[in-house]
Amino acid sequence: FEAGVSQNTTDFLHIINWHAAEEVFLAGDTVEINGMQVITLDTAIENNLLFFTPEPRSPHGADVAPHGDFIVVSGKLDPHVTVYSFQKIMDAIEAGVEETDQYGVPIIPMEDSVEAQVEVGLGPLHTEFDNQGYAYTSLFLDTAVARWSLGGENYRPEDGWTLQSTVPVQYNVGHIAAAEGDTVDPDGRYLVSLNKWSVDRFLSTGPLLPQNLQLVDISQSGDFMQVLYDMPLTGGEPHYAQIIKADKLHPWDVYPEIGWDPVTQSVSPDAVEPGEEGVFRDGNNVTVRMTAVRSHYTPEHVEIRQGDHVTWTITNIERARDATHGFALPYYNINLSLEPGESITFEFDATRDGVFSYYCTEFCSALHLEMMGYLTVQP
Amino acid sequence: FEAGVSQNTTDFLHIINWHAAEEVFLAGDTVEINGMQVITLDTAIENNLLFFTPEPRSPHGADVAPHGDFIVVSGKLDPHVTVYSFQKIMDAIEAGVEETDQYGVPIIPMEDSVEAQVEVGLGPLHTEFDNQGYAYTSLFLDTAVARWSLGGENYRPEDGWTLQSTVPVQYNVGHIAAAEGDTVDPDGRYLVSLNKWSVDRFLSTGPLLPQNLQLVDISQSGDFMQVLYDMPLTGGEPHYAQIIKADKLHPWDVYPEIGWDPVTQSVSPDAVEPGEEGVFRDGNNVTVRMTAVRSHYTPEHVEIRQGDHVTWTITNIERARDATHGFALPYYNINLSLEPGESITFEFDATRDGVFSYYCTEFCSALHLEMMGYLTVQP
Repeated sequence: FEAGVSQNTTDFLHIINWHAAEEVFLAGDTVEINGMQVITLDTAIENNLLFFTPEPRSPHGADVAPHGDFIVVSGKLDPHVTVYSFQKIMDAIEAGVEETDQYGVPIIPMEDSVEAQVEVGLGPLHTEFDNQGYAYTSLFLDTAVARWSLGGENYRPEDGWTLQSTVPVQYNVGHIAAAEGDTVDPDGRYLVSLNKWSVDRFLSTGPLLPQNLQLVDISQSGDFMQVLYDMPLTGGEPHYAQIIKADKLHPWDVYPEIGWDPVTQSVSPDAVEPGEEGVFRDGNNVTVRMTAVRSHYTPEHVEIRQGDHVTWTITNIERARDATHGFALPYYNINLSLEPGESITFEFDATRDGVFSYYCTEFCSALHLEMMGYLTVQP
Repeated sequence: FEAGVSQNTTDFLHIINWHAAEEVFLAGDTVEINGMQVITLDTAIENNLLFFTPEPRSPHGADVAPHGDFIVVSGKLDPHVTVYSFQKIMDAIEAGVEETDQYGVPIIPMEDSVEAQVEVGLGPLHTEFDNQGYAYTSLFLDTAVARWSLGGENYRPEDGWTLQSTVPVQYNVGHIAAAEGDTVDPDGRYLVSLNKWSVDRFLSTGPLLPQNLQLVDISQSGDFMQVLYDMPLTGGEPHYAQIIKADKLHPWDVYPEIGWDPVTQSVSPDAVEPGEEGVFRDGNNVTVRMTAVRSHYTPEHVEIRQGDHVTWTITNIERARDATHGFALPYYNINLSLEPGESITFEFDATRDGVFSYYCTEFCSALHLEMMGYLTVQP
């Protein structure tokens, strides 16, 4: 696939006029495929809502600058970032586009769409922005982050479109995240490099090495950038992140009401109030209604019959912060985390008879070990 | 269960002579229950291999001091740690034990088994040891770690059996880990407190708060201990850990040979060598033999029929450190991590026809996005 995917001299940046696409959709000029309304290529071309312009091949990131005026594309087999001008693209479309590809999609020549190219290093992938008019591009092959200057009156008219500096990162950066760096008003100051390979950075942990996130100081201008901190992580490859200032977030400390379903963001109709607990039978359908509070489940005994279909709701009736309870019923593959106020409903078929313990998996109080009960499945 | 579990004035430390138990097992004096050879209570009593001694109720940790001479028990509803003497227990058994419980298990009186009790604080759970003759006990309710001195000639004969200091931790510690603190030769210097609740320690992250590990300096003697560092963690409650000096570990950087099966710790008989790849059919049983190397799977097309049973082996033939590849075939719920040299075999039934892409999930090179292929399941 390598040869097939990268066989052309250039790939194409796809330019979609989504206001025009919305009008086509609202006019019903779509076809239904697998239940989705789809605008065909011919319709898109007829309605002037799709254009191409060439870009360096094997493109990776396509990132829009804070003022919406430039689009930065990294072709990872090309050492440059290519910066397209939104205004130039609009002007070219206005003036009329002659060339098309084999399917009839109009192609805007690069000389009519590109504002600048800046050589940043090997393997450029993704670009983020700061509050000083700089852009930052991750360099996978150079295993570094490049700082370069955006030109034009909105950014750095005096020293625009030049590489300022690179800072080595350890190692093989993919995505980067600058503080609010994807917004119309980047915060600057800090950037996190989300690195994949960490060979030789830490003591060996065996064949699978940790991923590594690095905090980089980008607060000064010019060529100074500095790695401040490493945070190795287990788990999968880090893939994209956003840094948002904490004062923009207003998280709940506990869910607003007891019986909260985090999926629907409302009180669950199945939520159990204290005093309503019990085991209810309707033919082979059994409903278990349970509450959890430090350090009891109510009921502590649930008796059913083999072959029953079980619908089981647990409501954590705590209001204290961090009074999370767990619920494990391992044979039936149930393992829950119930935050304060949360209500969860699960179902299973009681396929095997026996006595099965259920128990809390969070050390919720000094009596946590006693927060358990028994499910008896009669044969 | 709280009432039932904690209804007696004391619980019992169970003392098992496992050398004697081994002899009983080897003599065949066991009964088989669910395929396990079990020594009955009567046999255990007859052979003098089980004794009880009272301990404070709702016991949690039972930790053996470095010289094997003391056993430290925390009854989490009692503010003391209770220290039992191995020699006193052996002497009491030698002298003969009169009292028994209702099942006939001999009970050694506390005054014959206990060496000391030290009041350490509320909610004591687990105890670790250092190289200065100190013990450290986690205090769940006080949300602190207590340092106290072991007495006797092996530890601190001059100031033994006294509380030295407590250090607050944030918050609600369960387990603690001192450097090699569970061994005959503790390393001292550092202790990690594995804390569960982190209310008010960090910016709010919503109803589910991070767990928090804290590094504590225990290198000085007397009453000085200091929290050096916080490490908040997502995921489940931290539960036990060991700190082992890195020079005792000799991890492989890559697996010793290509085709390695980490489960059997040997080369898999199914491992695929370059040139052996292919799709092989025997009736409805299809065997896929695949290699992975930056940035290709071989083969890139796999064509089978609906109803086939598929046995699929992938061997990562890389020898470079950290050249991990992933393999995802989402519809069939396959998602693998293949470290350098590793071979994995999985099976599934091709229940659904269609064309399914498979692809690498680790950014393995600049051509990672092209590391993919297609599984075609003919109807």
